[in-house]
Amino acid sequence: MNAPHELRPKNVPPAPPAVDLLTRFRTVREATMRRVAPLSAEDCCAQSTPDASPVKWHLAHTSWFFETFILERFEPDFVPHHPAFRMLFNSYYNGIGERHLRAHRGLITRPSYAQVLAYRAAVDARVEALVCGLHATAVDAPTIANLLALGLQHEQQHQELIMTDVLHLLSMNPLQPAYHGVAQLHASTLAEQLHWRWFEAGIVMIGHDEVDFCFDNEGPRHRQFVERFALASRLVTNGEFRAFVEDGGYDEPAFWLSEGWDWVRANDLRQPLYWRHDAETGWQEFGLHGLQPMDAQAALAHVSFYEADAYARWAGARLPTEAEWESAVAADDGSALSQAFDTCWQWTASSYAPYPGYAPQEGALGEYNGKFMVNQYVLRGGSCGTPAGHARATYRNFFPAMARWQFSGIRLAQSAPRGY
Amino acid sequence: MNAPHELRPKNVPPAPPAVDLLTRFRTVREATMRRVAPLSAEDCCAQSTPDASPVKWHLAHTSWFFETFILERFEPDFVPHHPAFRMLFNSYYNGIGERHLRAHRGLITRPSYAQVLAYRAAVDARVEALVCGLHATAVDAPTIANLLALGLQHEQQHQELIMTDVLHLLSMNPLQPAYHGVAQLHASTLAEQLHWRWFEAGIVMIGHDEVDFCFDNEGPRHRQFVERFALASRLVTNGEFRAFVEDGGYDEPAFWLSEGWDWVRANDLRQPLYWRHDAETGWQEFGLHGLQPMDAQAALAHVSFYEADAYARWAGARLPTEAEWESAVAADDGSALSQAFDTCWQWTASSYAPYPGYAPQEGALGEYNGKFMVNQYVLRGGSCGTPAGHARATYRNFFPAMARWQFSGIRLAQSAPRGY
Amino acid sequence: MNAPHELRPKNVPPAPPAVDLLTRFRTVREATMRRVAPLSAEDCCAQSTPDASPVKWHLAHTSWFFETFILERFEPDFVPHHPAFRMLFNSYYNGIGERHLRAHRGLITRPSYAQVLAYRAAVDARVEALVCGLHATAVDAPTIANLLALGLQHEQQHQELIMTDVLHLLSMNPLQPAYHGVAQLHASTLAEQLHWRWFEAGIVMIGHDEVDFCFDNEGPRHRQFVERFALASRLVTNGEFRAFVEDGGYDEPAFWLSEGWDWVRANDLRQPLYWRHDAETGWQEFGLHGLQPMDAQAALAHVSFYEADAYARWAGARLPTEAEWESAVAADDGSALSQAFDTCWQWTASSYAPYPGYAPQEGALGEYNGKFMVNQYVLRGGSCGTPAGHARATYRNFFPAMARWQFSGIRLAQSAPRGY
Amino acid sequence: MNAPHELRPKNVPPAPPAVDLLTRFRTVREATMRRVAPLSAEDCCAQSTPDASPVKWHLAHTSWFFETFILERFEPDFVPHHPAFRMLFNSYYNGIGERHLRAHRGLITRPSYAQVLAYRAAVDARVEALVCGLHATAVDAPTIANLLALGLQHEQQHQELIMTDVLHLLSMNPLQPAYHGVAQLHASTLAEQLHWRWFEAGIVMIGHDEVDFCFDNEGPRHRQFVERFALASRLVTNGEFRAFVEDGGYDEPAFWLSEGWDWVRANDLRQPLYWRHDAETGWQEFGLHGLQPMDAQAALAHVSFYEADAYARWAGARLPTEAEWESAVAADDGSALSQAFDTCWQWTASSYAPYPGYAPQEGALGEYNGKFMVNQYVLRGGSCGTPAGHARATYRNFFPAMARWQFSGIRLAQSAPRGY
Repeated sequence: MNAPHELRPKNVPPAPPAVDLLTRFRTVREATMRRVAPLSAEDCCAQSTPDASPVKWHLAHTSWFFETFILERFEPDFVPHHPAFRMLFNSYYNGIGERHLRAHRGLITRPSYAQVLAYRAAVDARVEALVCGLHATAVDAPTIANLLALGLQHEQQHQELIMTDVLHLLSMNPLQPAYHGVAQLHASTLAEQLHWRWFEAGIVMIGHDEVDFCFDNEGPRHRQFVERFALASRLVTNGEFRAFVEDGGYDEPAFWLSEGWDWVRANDLRQPLYWRHDAETGWQEFGLHGLQPMDAQAALAHVSFYEADAYARWAGARLPTEAEWESAVAADDGSALSQAFDTCWQWTASSYAPYPGYAPQEGALGEYNGKFMVNQYVLRGGSCGTPAGHARATYRNFFPAMARWQFSGIRLAQSAPRGY
Repeated sequence: MNAPHELRPKNVPPAPPAVDLLTRFRTVREATMRRVAPLSAEDCCAQSTPDASPVKWHLAHTSWFFETFILERFEPDFVPHHPAFRMLFNSYYNGIGERHLRAHRGLITRPSYAQVLAYRAAVDARVEALVCGLHATAVDAPTIANLLALGLQHEQQHQELIMTDVLHLLSMNPLQPAYHGVAQLHASTLAEQLHWRWFEAGIVMIGHDEVDFCFDNEGPRHRQFVERFALASRLVTNGEFRAFVEDGGYDEPAFWLSEGWDWVRANDLRQPLYWRHDAETGWQEFGLHGLQPMDAQAALAHVSFYEADAYARWAGARLPTEAEWESAVAADDGSALSQAFDTCWQWTASSYAPYPGYAPQEGALGEYNGKFMVNQYVLRGGSCGTPAGHARATYRNFFPAMARWQFSGIRLAQSAPRGY
Repeated sequence: MNAPHELRPKNVPPAPPAVDLLTRFRTVREATMRRVAPLSAEDCCAQSTPDASPVKWHLAHTSWFFETFILERFEPDFVPHHPAFRMLFNSYYNGIGERHLRAHRGLITRPSYAQVLAYRAAVDARVEALVCGLHATAVDAPTIANLLALGLQHEQQHQELIMTDVLHLLSMNPLQPAYHGVAQLHASTLAEQLHWRWFEAGIVMIGHDEVDFCFDNEGPRHRQFVERFALASRLVTNGEFRAFVEDGGYDEPAFWLSEGWDWVRANDLRQPLYWRHDAETGWQEFGLHGLQPMDAQAALAHVSFYEADAYARWAGARLPTEAEWESAVAADDGSALSQAFDTCWQWTASSYAPYPGYAPQEGALGEYNGKFMVNQYVLRGGSCGTPAGHARATYRNFFPAMARWQFSGIRLAQSAPRGY
Repeated sequence: MNAPHELRPKNVPPAPPAVDLLTRFRTVREATMRRVAPLSAEDCCAQSTPDASPVKWHLAHTSWFFETFILERFEPDFVPHHPAFRMLFNSYYNGIGERHLRAHRGLITRPSYAQVLAYRAAVDARVEALVCGLHATAVDAPTIANLLALGLQHEQQHQELIMTDVLHLLSMNPLQPAYHGVAQLHASTLAEQLHWRWFEAGIVMIGHDEVDFCFDNEGPRHRQFVERFALASRLVTNGEFRAFVEDGGYDEPAFWLSEGWDWVRANDLRQPLYWRHDAETGWQEFGLHGLQPMDAQAALAHVSFYEADAYARWAGARLPTEAEWESAVAADDGSALSQAFDTCWQWTASSYAPYPGYAPQEGALGEYNGKFMVNQYVLRGGSCGTPAGHARATYRNFFPAMARWQFSGIRLAQSAPRGY
């Protein structure tokens, strides 16, 4: 399972003033700590699956990123905060050297949580000192500004992973504890009526223009031809998916890709990851507020690509392609397509592949930009776990077809009838 | 591992005369038996990997196909040849009922090889009787003709699998026996000089028009936009790939997709599937003629998608997409692109996915047409194992990224430089 | 899973006359071929589990044994029958050199069955020529006679394995074919009433005195102290074990060793290996005569050590130790203990360990005599598959606790009440 | 892997005065906490292998034992400290109800370490109140005294596991942190010269007489016959085992049991669990004081049964049986056999099996006393991790043949020459 994908800033614009940089730096770094506030040192140390990482590791790794790619390069007389952290908190950059085994991250009881917080504070202070000392006219200023922007985008990716990884950890605890102390009291409103929004065939432009910040897998911006298609105005709800479950959806091979069916059988699956059912309480859903009665109007979350595809087939529809999703969202003024960025990532039918003309960056940062481009499927949009300001229409999230612990849901699509 | 993909004839043309049908039927069925001639009953019974099937199973399954989809439907007073064969020789049609466990096919010592040959003969006789009794004006004639065409295309797919599966079985035998009794005495000619053939950006039409026979995954014919690209005039040779090996290709993670690198490490791979090396004899290659000195000018075969992709990266190129491959081959008059259909299947960069507007057929035959469309990669062209007349430019072969036992090779592509 | 254990003759008696040696050699070698007679070349090639071997392999390996340990050593100008057979048909003698991977024995379609029969015939002829040429006074005569005796005991072990391995292969075939063409028409007589035969506490002698032939794990003969105990007069029947099954025996952890319970759960077991049950036909048992209605009076067979132990606990009894079993059988005049040698091997409570003073032999033959003495349990007696004359009271058969494909059954024991 | 084995007190002596009970209770409970003192909450939460448990779990489980088997039974108006702890901290008593999955113990970040300490304190207070309220003449007094004794022996077993489990956790940390803050400054004295102490053949009594406390697997006391044998006067040293390693001990199959050799190959082992080697520093050993230069004179620790057996074979000796070990230690006045109880547990050649006449106790406590008696090997003596006063000559520790994380070492034995 890939950790978030580090991708490069392409065209380097002039550096913004140091004060703006610092404000943004502090804002993002503090936002991470706010997510961690309800957790104990023990909560932050455990790893519930090799796909996930301990919170402590996220806190250290995001600091390691600034230390390795900015401080080490630009700080005069750089001395590492701790010589072993270079290896312990490297995620997958072979170019940086050895890495600690991913599946053993939960065994790192030392350095302690307190020591990792001290590491964060030290990195923060040194980055701030470096930025304060910069003149906007310094030759390195634009590069540092760009690396800082990249590091903060990277940090925001880990902010989302902190939520999904903590949720998974708590879900493995028989006590089913809540992340938020107070139970969610959402007076669920009725989900809107589902509409189909049609788009005509033609050449569309997709991908980021790379003027502002983007990850390198978002470019180059390029042409694709899409046939006529429709996109659902909102995401699939829990209630709609429950109808699939209760219609025997997990028992009928005709709905499933062959590989998906094998996965269902091998894991004896009957429902989405965090759904619970017993005769007494009926359907419940485990979430950040603990175990709650299932809200039929809420958007479905925590399904795999296989489940998304099977549901779509059962519903007489399909998943959208990346080009369909992006061109539709770009074309929409916000009135036709809701829940694009703030609810659940939306599985697409597109496997994760390089755009035409994509070429990897030099050096460790870009060394592996494209190395995850096989046997993964793209999700578009954003979720309730995505930090504000982080999502955009060109963003390409990706996970293997069986991944379920992310906030992953479904937006349906359909093609024009043949002969149309 | 998927067996060949049964796909439907789309638009049913009028049935050809019975005599033509019979001639083609006999020709194809006999071609299968010619491939089996050098093998013993024991050779035909063993299964060397769950990916492959015993030859006996191929012989029975292709007969089962005609029995199940033609005789059972159109023969008056149909009685099955053997009641248990329905289950034993069903490959993956859940709609037809239970199947025998794929990995246990090598344990079916009974029915014997002789009994399976008798099964073939009986099915042949009954199909021929049915066809001979048809009037071309009979209401079923076109349907039967189409199912026959489908069954024969299906049989041709298994003809190729017989070669690849036998090759794998023999390769597992420490005696390294040959399929052909006589050693290959090919005076290898020099491989032609590699040229790059450039194609301009634009909308291309790809996919089958479905007027003649095609598998349903080849349609509908539709538009795609391709950016400017170049295709290599021939396939990568053994000698070229050996340079990659000897340059440390299997030791350097930078060349590999992350998943490919894990696969190389986990399986301790150093070279293509059938290459052998020792200090005394140097490089050798195991093939249908047994173990032979490696021919540096011959086309490389038996590499996985991972290896193809790694080689391309090392070579400063990439794999072509399906649309690039098909539009280039369609545009070529045969003078610029050699080895398209007769040497090795060519890995593309495209994951196997439905074309826009693709919709599955009704019933068991079409029940699972698309069910393999996840985590597989498309190969285009054809190979030395493909029966004459079976290949075409729209044909979509597909296998998982680690599959190596097919005749799979590499044709390189490249994009126009950015800013071009 | 161990193949039969090759163990050494200890004290070398004078060699018997050549003619007697030859008679015995031919008798045993022909007995092997009689067991193989109902099988096809395909039947003889397949391997249904890594624990079992193909019949063809058994035929070749037993010949390899004579070739390697007698012909190679004593034949002047020895030339191997085929240079590759040395490696192909070596079972586990590291001292002899490389071995072929056990799990891949079913892929050896070449040499063919006919070639293996020719190998047997050639070895037979050469051994016979060597023996005929011997003078009883020759210095090698006693050694050759002993190696011959060892080789024939070894062959008899494989005769039993041929039956158990074929039975397993046929059981994996959905057609459930029979080894014997004719169905068993046994008018089952009532099993005798079970009696308990008591034995007093004291020092007993167990182990072989090594005057006649024995495997080396049977000696040295030595003293053991046994407390008062009782042994059941006959084996547990199918009907008795069915009562355990129907009493929820496979559902109640209290009956099982912890490891046995894990094994039951992991494999979802409900009954002995070859029992079948459905509502329509009730209980059936698969055997060498195919699928037959279960005979409640027949001895239970094909249970693991775990099942034997669980049954004993359910029945308020226990399994006997080796010392108990051997001393009781030795003390019995045949009137109190039936089914000792001709029905099923009987699991003991004893793990397989060296007797006091046991020391391995020099050279390859004895190289690994004791190397299986860990995590295996001893079975005593003999079975319906054991060749006549092969069983004896000191014989130590052994298999891992989960092995079920041998003819393994249960004879109960009990201790005197405490304070007795 | 079994947790320590809960076994029953047999003959119930009169209860000692409450004040003595309380003193012992407090002493043992406090000794546990002293072992935990150097650890953080994070250290106490992690689980480094399914064989080991988190320290927090040990702390809770030992308290659960007193709560479940004493408070729940004898406290008037018993209310559980926390309803979920009954399931969370049950180890393997099926009779008590559901258990939490062993491999997931490291995910129990809640209850927190502080809550578990509160649980311990509450149980301590309630047990003390119960005991203080007892009159020695009360009918329950002897039963409670016995259960208390059992619970404290159980707690002492977990005290040793706390050390071995923490050592394993720290060994998995790339920083190789020490449990003890201060490095060990042992001026290693020369290991004594190894002598062989001989014992004559005869009937010996082994097993506990069950007058004082013992676990039930230690009885009944009974007779065994042992042939003449010798025992080494001390344990094998690091230096001696290093000679085996440097003699190619891990490369030569002839030294190993077949299953041990497979284990060595499959895990690519070259040395004992905590030995480290590189060209620069030479041999080092990881221990509770961190990484230290190897002390060649110190006793070897952390080897498996396979390694112990292979070493013994290489050294021309063997492992002792249980009866040999126990009778020799019982017969020794302390002058001939050193390091019996205070250095390392000593692997014996005996598989773990019930003594003659052993019968399980009624109820949950005794429900599974014997359920681990298969595929495990007995270790005798005690170790540096065993609490003072816990070891005795009849004590039977047991682990699977590949277990290495305990303080397990080797004392050699040998038999009299044959014919002696």
